[in-house]
Amino acid sequence: MQFEEYIINRAAQVDIALERYLPAENQLPQSLHQAMRYSVFAGGKRLRPVLMIAAGEAVGGTVSRLLHAACAMEMLHTYSLVHDDLPAMDDDDYRRGQPTNHKVYGEAQAILAGDALLTEAFRLLADPEANREIPPAVALRVIEIIARYAGSNGMVGGQVVDMESEGQEIDFPTLEYIHTHKTGALILASVQVGALLGGGNEDQYAALSRFGEAAGLAFQIADDILDVVGDQDELGKDVGSDQARGKATYPALLGLAEARNRAAELRDLAIEALTPLGDPAEPLRALARYIVNRTS
Amino acid sequence: MQFEEYIINRAAQVDIALERYLPAENQLPQSLHQAMRYSVFAGGKRLRPVLMIAAGEAVGGTVSRLLHAACAMEMLHTYSLVHDDLPAMDDDDYRRGQPTNHKVYGEAQAILAGDALLTEAFRLLADPEANREIPPAVALRVIEIIARYAGSNGMVGGQVVDMESEGQEIDFPTLEYIHTHKTGALILASVQVGALLGGGNEDQYAALSRFGEAAGLAFQIADDILDVVGDQDELGKDVGSDQARGKATYPALLGLAEARNRAAELRDLAIEALTPLGDPAEPLRALARYIVNRTS
Repeated sequence: MQFEEYIINRAAQVDIALERYLPAENQLPQSLHQAMRYSVFAGGKRLRPVLMIAAGEAVGGTVSRLLHAACAMEMLHTYSLVHDDLPAMDDDDYRRGQPTNHKVYGEAQAILAGDALLTEAFRLLADPEANREIPPAVALRVIEIIARYAGSNGMVGGQVVDMESEGQEIDFPTLEYIHTHKTGALILASVQVGALLGGGNEDQYAALSRFGEAAGLAFQIADDILDVVGDQDELGKDVGSDQARGKATYPALLGLAEARNRAAELRDLAIEALTPLGDPAEPLRALARYIVNRTS
Repeated sequence: MQFEEYIINRAAQVDIALERYLPAENQLPQSLHQAMRYSVFAGGKRLRPVLMIAAGEAVGGTVSRLLHAACAMEMLHTYSLVHDDLPAMDDDDYRRGQPTNHKVYGEAQAILAGDALLTEAFRLLADPEANREIPPAVALRVIEIIARYAGSNGMVGGQVVDMESEGQEIDFPTLEYIHTHKTGALILASVQVGALLGGGNEDQYAALSRFGEAAGLAFQIADDILDVVGDQDELGKDVGSDQARGKATYPALLGLAEARNRAAELRDLAIEALTPLGDPAEPLRALARYIVNRTS
């Protein structure tokens, strides 16, 4: 894969920063901070933070301006997984091959660890030391964007419609609502925040937004496809679980071949949107290809 | 009660603003927005937002500078109640005499409604229109304070220690940790944010912080006492539930008489802290008395 080194390197920088930004395990209440760290360091690919950094670098930003927001985005993503896995929600015992948070720490602690990760994400986004290179007005705009895409009109909204659609016949607009909100929203927010913190102008912000919309939807279609044809060991979770739950997916609604076409189309759309950004956007192009071609 | 009209009036302003700020019930996903609104409008006393506004007015601020943050604080408080009532947590069927969120909307929706309220609180705190009178650096500081007091080192931390202490013999420092974090944190944050948005100087901020610390702890002790001697109908929830659960409380650890003394002492401390603020702090003094003397 092209730019593999770039992606591995940025993901490693995110890991180091997360280690620094998350409350220490020996800080009271220890059980809570352990539970928060358990899921943040459970083998995530750091896709959203790496997308944010790559978007910021594509418009001339430096990693140091982006790292705290990248970590906040990963905390937000992790909270959503912890709550999604709960018995009352998807009731998953494993994620990325490891027991889910509530299997290790119990349901109450998992709910609270998710709440605390969500809250800590916003604290970090407003942290004065982390924002020392960022004008307050920009930091505020970043918070508004992330909260908007994460909340009831974004990711949480997508979760609700996804949940309510289980076992139901749904139409294509509903499927697109679920996908653009549940997964697409945080991916789009990541590149928009990258554009803002990286110091991009309005045209660059618009180009990255088009990239983020297409890449976000492509990511979820690829996810749906992997649930049908993926390798259980490589994915670290059961395949076929969407079908077993009667989940609405692209392959279920369009067939596998057509779903693959749609993912490839969106990847090309995403890459095309980056044209005005030139060479500095090469890592983002590689990420768009990775999103569609990945096997886990 | 003195200043009853002031308090009723400010609470009504908060209600009107909450109605405006919360996503409409007919907005998709409707079930989620209904669940969010159900708990926000389930008869809360609006104590935290009224404290915030009273603190802001005590240092010369206007209601219009404070209202959005007051609403965000109430959303945060409501999310904590919705999650606290969940079967995996306190497993409460009623709150303020009405069925709890998960009894009406189901457990999954209640988890997500809580998540969405928490997220919406931060969105509102960063909302450009709501902050039009507030310098961005101040808005950012407000977000940092609220997130710090709401997160793993604040309210959520207090929840965890409270939960882990059920049925355990705990010492006084642990009890104080629970009380200052679980309930005290958001009350302290409310008056600090009031001081900041109201345009208070450093001395006023310090005075209001001392007030908030004492009032927050007094509130929780009064709550513990009400759980022993309160009127079930007036409270809208079962009394004696703390004891039944083996919860650590002031009356359990110190006895009822000593707990009452401590609450009265803290009320006096809170009122004393307001001396430098003079007459404009009269509503806050009334609130301190109300916190300790209330019957529901």
